[in-house]
Amino acid sequence: MKKLINRPDDVVREALEGMAAAHPDMLRVSLEPAYLVRADAPVAGKVAVLSGGGSGHEPMHGGFVGVGMLDAACPGAVFTSPTPDQVLAASRAVNGGAGVLHVVKNYTGDVLNFELAGEMAKSDGMAVETVLIHDDVAVQDSLYTAGRRGVGVTVLAEKMAGAAAEEGRPLSGVASVCREVSERGRSMGMALTSCTVPAAGRPTFDLAPDEMEIGIGIHGEPGRTRTELKTAREITELLASAILDDLPFARGDRVLAFVNGMGGTPLIELYVVYRELARICSGRGIAIVRSLVGPYMTSLEMAGCSITLVRMDDELIRLWDAPVKTPALRVGL
Amino acid sequence: MKKLINRPDDVVREALEGMAAAHPDMLRVSLEPAYLVRADAPVAGKVAVLSGGGSGHEPMHGGFVGVGMLDAACPGAVFTSPTPDQVLAASRAVNGGAGVLHVVKNYTGDVLNFELAGEMAKSDGMAVETVLIHDDVAVQDSLYTAGRRGVGVTVLAEKMAGAAAEEGRPLSGVASVCREVSERGRSMGMALTSCTVPAAGRPTFDLAPDEMEIGIGIHGEPGRTRTELKTAREITELLASAILDDLPFARGDRVLAFVNGMGGTPLIELYVVYRELARICSGRGIAIVRSLVGPYMTSLEMAGCSITLVRMDDELIRLWDAPVKTPALRVGL
Repeated sequence: MKKLINRPDDVVREALEGMAAAHPDMLRVSLEPAYLVRADAPVAGKVAVLSGGGSGHEPMHGGFVGVGMLDAACPGAVFTSPTPDQVLAASRAVNGGAGVLHVVKNYTGDVLNFELAGEMAKSDGMAVETVLIHDDVAVQDSLYTAGRRGVGVTVLAEKMAGAAAEEGRPLSGVASVCREVSERGRSMGMALTSCTVPAAGRPTFDLAPDEMEIGIGIHGEPGRTRTELKTAREITELLASAILDDLPFARGDRVLAFVNGMGGTPLIELYVVYRELARICSGRGIAIVRSLVGPYMTSLEMAGCSITLVRMDDELIRLWDAPVKTPALRVGL
Repeated sequence: MKKLINRPDDVVREALEGMAAAHPDMLRVSLEPAYLVRADAPVAGKVAVLSGGGSGHEPMHGGFVGVGMLDAACPGAVFTSPTPDQVLAASRAVNGGAGVLHVVKNYTGDVLNFELAGEMAKSDGMAVETVLIHDDVAVQDSLYTAGRRGVGVTVLAEKMAGAAAEEGRPLSGVASVCREVSERGRSMGMALTSCTVPAAGRPTFDLAPDEMEIGIGIHGEPGRTRTELKTAREITELLASAILDDLPFARGDRVLAFVNGMGGTPLIELYVVYRELARICSGRGIAIVRSLVGPYMTSLEMAGCSITLVRMDDELIRLWDAPVKTPALRVGL
């Protein structure tokens, strides 16, 4: 295992300390229990948006903590759900009196632990709403999931819900934006290589030198099919057509197109994929009105990509364009 | 070779088309000859800042084209210098009458081709200044370099020179900011794995599973030493002490600390390295006043990192903080 780490057990904590040292203007870090909150938390009267999940997907979620996006993120161990006490402590730390939205990716452990934390917070008298993200069209159930997995839409929902919270909407309104993005978005991913979880020390799965996995999960969960390596054009067709046919997206739709790198894929390749995606959307009469290209929701050093499309309207475009200042996403601030 | 590409020969062109499609609000692309210019180029009366070099280091340089940073970038083939005609055409496309600054990384081909382009531009009557970046303390001469290689300082010099140009300074003033950053900055990198150039189809060099290369170049050029894999703490000590002792940086200095990913290293590991770097700087009485952490100057999918430190003053901090709107770096816009 070749990694820039000290002890495998210390990676998450040390990375959190690194983030705290690098971004004191944007966020603060608690180590025990582990969470990140925006530097000025709690913001009185503002709905707080909180997310979390296993580490190993950076910059998601900690890199999205700051003005205009997440008030808090709860990182679990690598590819492991955060505990209820982490989520509860973070909720308390960011609740400014207007309640807390929990944005939860649909994995069994995450769902359970956020549910427990939400119940405890409510018994404190805190207003909590939960929105489940389950946008991955690849498979119905998976290794860690009942129903569809939550993937790329999470990043976009956190941005737009964060903007809605920033402009002072009540908890129900912020939750409704988040739910709307979730309902309007679909994703699918693929991998060229496996990643290696530090504590495991060896690749999560094996792929032959001429193989790829279509529909992979962000923890290396099996996808739809393992097949011989194809061109970027063929791969993008496979992912995009599954996504487009699922919602379904239709002629005249305006979309946000997100080409996400899994961690080990160079940016130059993501732009090659974006070019194919733009061609496919244009061919179907779908207008890409906003885009995001880069490694925003990764699987450690896995090589591969995912594609996410969200059907936008004027209101969502406005929320997407709203100012944000986080380590990984920054606009207007 | 596992890559998200179509034909190896088409990668650079297709990625440029992808960038043009994804960022029409920030930049425009010319394919023949290949260059990117900011969307509103040429800006009348403003000094234009131009850089370029081999592709495969994305987001450098194309991802830094936009308001407040580069007016133009000239991408060569992967790990290959851009041609003089690319640089000349891009210079003409962005010259707003106040002249053009060429920011050149010190590699023999780049230096030669920028020199030729600069001479042709001058014989057109264009004012051109050139600043050479040669910040890599690892080795004196290298596979493609006489003198020190240009690496991480390039990104920072482009940002601060771009800010100086944006606020209306004359060519000599913009060049002087760029030169100052270059003189005040030092870098060194390391690799855990090789990358694979698409046209070559196999790794540039071999590293055993328990080996790493300290002082590596961004094209895989040999560094100082090939040694057994060490911890993040030991690796950061090796890189940071070489850098700190070279300028030398001294107690009381204020620095910008840049931990750069080589392409295949997860962000979580870069923050582990940043934590070590912050500890080392603090131990020497050096204050990190600004930071940058992420894959900004990559070597395709190489795993590894580089560290860059620049000694800052109030004026450079102001230029670093100035608004910028590019695909890869964005502040305040």
